[in-house]
Formats: sequence, structure tokens, C-alpha cells
Amino acid sequence: MAEPERIWTAALLVIGDEILSGRTQDKNVAQIALWLNIQGIRLREVRVVADDMAAIGDAVNALRAANDYLFTTGGIGPTHDDITVDAVAAALGLPVVIHEGARAILEAHYAARGGVTEARLRMARVPQGAGLIENPMSGAPGIHIGNIMILAGVPHIAAMMLDSLTGTLEGGRPVVSATIGCNVPESEVADMLAATERAHDGCQIGSYPFFRDGQTGANFVIRSTDVDRLKACEDDLATRLIDMGYEPVAGGI
Amino acid sequence: MAEPERIWTAALLVIGDEILSGRTQDKNVAQIALWLNIQGIRLREVRVVADDMAAIGDAVNALRAANDYLFTTGGIGPTHDDITVDAVAAALGLPVVIHEGARAILEAHYAARGGVTEARLRMARVPQGAGLIENPMSGAPGIHIGNIMILAGVPHIAAMMLDSLTGTLEGGRPVVSATIGCNVPESEVADMLAATERAHDGCQIGSYPFFRDGQTGANFVIRSTDVDRLKACEDDLATRLIDMGYEPVAGGI
Repeated sequence: MAEPERIWTAALLVIGDEILSGRTQDKNVAQIALWLNIQGIRLREVRVVADDMAAIGDAVNALRAANDYLFTTGGIGPTHDDITVDAVAAALGLPVVIHEGARAILEAHYAARGGVTEARLRMARVPQGAGLIENPMSGAPGIHIGNIMILAGVPHIAAMMLDSLTGTLEGGRPVVSATIGCNVPESEVADMLAATERAHDGCQIGSYPFFRDGQTGANFVIRSTDVDRLKACEDDLATRLIDMGYEPVAGGI
Repeated sequence: MAEPERIWTAALLVIGDEILSGRTQDKNVAQIALWLNIQGIRLREVRVVADDMAAIGDAVNALRAANDYLFTTGGIGPTHDDITVDAVAAALGLPVVIHEGARAILEAHYAARGGVTEARLRMARVPQGAGLIENPMSGAPGIHIGNIMILAGVPHIAAMMLDSLTGTLEGGRPVVSATIGCNVPESEVADMLAATERAHDGCQIGSYPFFRDGQTGANFVIRSTDVDRLKACEDDLATRLIDMGYEPVAGGI
């Protein structure tokens, strides 16, 4: 019997009152999910918590234990509400220290901008033993410690930190997906979808209904880590839709 | 001494592989957060989990115990991947039954659309003892059981279910907020922000940096449940910015 495929998983902890108040629309979940998939790592859970030491610490310890990797976004700037480093360090039982490499990066970045003040030096603080994640944009680096990657909350800075991490994390086979759209109420094909999924080991089918331009329809997303199985399931689903009198639209509607 | 103000809290559990895969950008967190605030209820935590019975059940039990209310979105349609009702019922130790009121709603809705098939009848399944949350749009209702509100995942349908719930949940005083924008690197005012927050009991100040049109700046968001305290803190912050040579922009940049 073949060994079951190792699935690599990650969790994401979004830290910030601004997301929980509804003021800011999160954009990091989707971008990190897509990036992780290319690394062959599956995003298994996301939590959003407030700027609160205990809430962050509890989530960090639950999520880092249950997953291969934990990413955090937010709370690593220079102001009083930026407490991610302190909360992660406390969760790990580590002291917070100034990272000399980070200090050097900040000194270079702020050389022509008034120098490194005490507030700016906050951005060189790390849990003891941590490494840096390069941030070519704004100087202040991200941090990795154990299986935890601490990223910025501003989405385009988080994106650059992900670029720096690309190819550095061990993963498995990425999930590939195919989408078939159809102008059909999903309730009319529900049994067929379930039967199709059962007939194709290693494939999952998700059904995502829409109502658009007066038309009811759904997109069916097939996911697998095996390209051949994915194709077989996609072809079968299209055939079954045609047999029922509907028109499948490859790529979705 | 005045009794400390009772804070009403809610958690949100977003259920769906489509969010964790990055395929779909979540829109329910922000809309539910804003709606909750108007009800005087604070969104304290969000979790996103996959379409998985154990993952949903564990999150439901953790979040309903820690908060006054738990909202869920997603997984209540007619297809095989819609398992929210089963997972919530299992978490509560309740059987799943057909709700006769929900069946009647579906029969009326589908009377001219081919009737209630077995797949459509899935949308009348509820944990035993549950009530319904009206959905004027697509027939299939939301569900409330204990302190749990089970909403649709499609954002405009979730919005209509929130409309149905408006004014029905007990809450406290809503959080009010004021925003001051300023073209200043946040690291230059970090100490002042912390001092301002300390000087104003019952107010929190968040700092949200931006880089736009070649300008570095930040928006400072003050939050409080007390309008007078909010105003005092806002005025003080504006004065301090002016004293440091910066120009505060009321309402943010």
C-alpha cells in the first residue's frame, strides 16, 4: 500500500482591532492562502483577534501546535498598539531582545530620515533567537521564530515579505483546481454532485451558488493534489451536467 | 464606585473551503462587525475553518462558551459540502430534524420552481429546538439555536438575515469612533500617541499607517463607548499634533 501523502498545513492569525471593528477589509487571508498553495502548504484555519496580549498568546499556542506553520499579520509597527512581538514572545516563554541585524537595517533605512528613535527601535525587537524576513519596502523586517512567521499587516508589505519567503518553506504537492460553471439552481444537481465526488477518490467538489443578471447558477470547484484525477473528475462532471440537459461552462461563470 | 460597564461580545465562525483556498474574498467579517457595533455588541474573535465536522464543532463549542453570541456564515445550502447544521447539532449534542416552518417556506418558494426535492428539503434541516431567521430573498431561512445564529455565506443573503435580526439581540452601548489623519511617519508620534491614550480613560487609539502618492502618513482611530470622552481625546490629539508642527485632518486621510 502506498504511504498516505503528507499534507503540510498552516494557520494564519490576523491581529488587529481594525479588522474586528469592520473599519478595514482584510486582504491578507486571500493573498496568503494563494501563496501557501503554491508552496504546497494548505491554509487550514484563520483566526482574527484583537490587540490583546492574552488573546494573541492563546491563539499562537493553539495554532502553532496544530499546524506545520503559523503566520501572523499585523501589530509589528512602532506604536503602542503594536504588541505582536511581545505577545508571541510571552506565548513562547522567551524574552524580547533587540535584533542587531534589524537595528542595522533600520539605521540604514532611517539614516536620511532623522535616524533611529526609541519608537523606531521598537521595530528591531524580536523574541530571543528569532531570524528576520526581509522587507525591501519599508525597512522594518518580518520575523521568524520556530514555525512562526510574523508579517506586517499592510497588505503590500506582507506581500513583499511573502516574496522573501518563497521557496524557503518545506511543503507537499500543491492543490490544483478546476472550475465548471452552470446556469442551474444547485439544489437540482445536489445529488449528482455528491455522487460525482464519491466516484473520484482524492477529489473534492465545492458548490458556490450565485444569482446574477436574473439568472440562478453555481460554480463547481474541483480540488485535488493529482492533476490526472482532477481532469477525470472534471470531464465526468461536465458529462453528467450535459446528460441532465445543462450546459457546463469550463472555467466557471 | 460605578458598576463597570457590561460589554456584550460576539464571535464569528466563517465556514468554507473557498475562503481558505483564497478563491473567494470574504466580505462577511466587515459587514457583520459593523452591524454588531450598531447593536452594541463587540466582535471579539473571528475564525475561518474548512468544511469539516470536527473543525466546525470544536470552534463552535469554544466560541459559543466564550462569547454572548456566536454567528456562523456558510455551509447551509442544499449540496453535500453544506454541513454546518450537522456540525452545529453534533457540537450541541442535538439531533437534526426537519423544521416544519422552514419546510412550509421552501414549499411556497419552490411551488412554481419544480417543488421541494430531497436536496432542497436539506435546507429545512435544523438542530432540534431551533428557530428560524427570515430570509426574504432566496427562501431558505437562517437558524438560531441557543446563542448561535447560523447565516448564509453569500454576503447579500447574510445581509438580509442581519436585517431580520436587527433590534432583536440584547447589547450594550455601541462603540463610537473618530479618525484623525496626518501626513507624519507614525514612528515620529508613537510616544505622543501612547501618552494621549494614557491620559484619556475609556479611549483606545489605533494607528494605521499608509504610504500613498509618495507620502507617508497614518490615520489615528480613537474608540470609546462614551461620546464625551471620545471628543475630549480627539481634541487633545489634534492639539498635540499641531504643537508638534503637524497638520491634523479631521475624519482621516
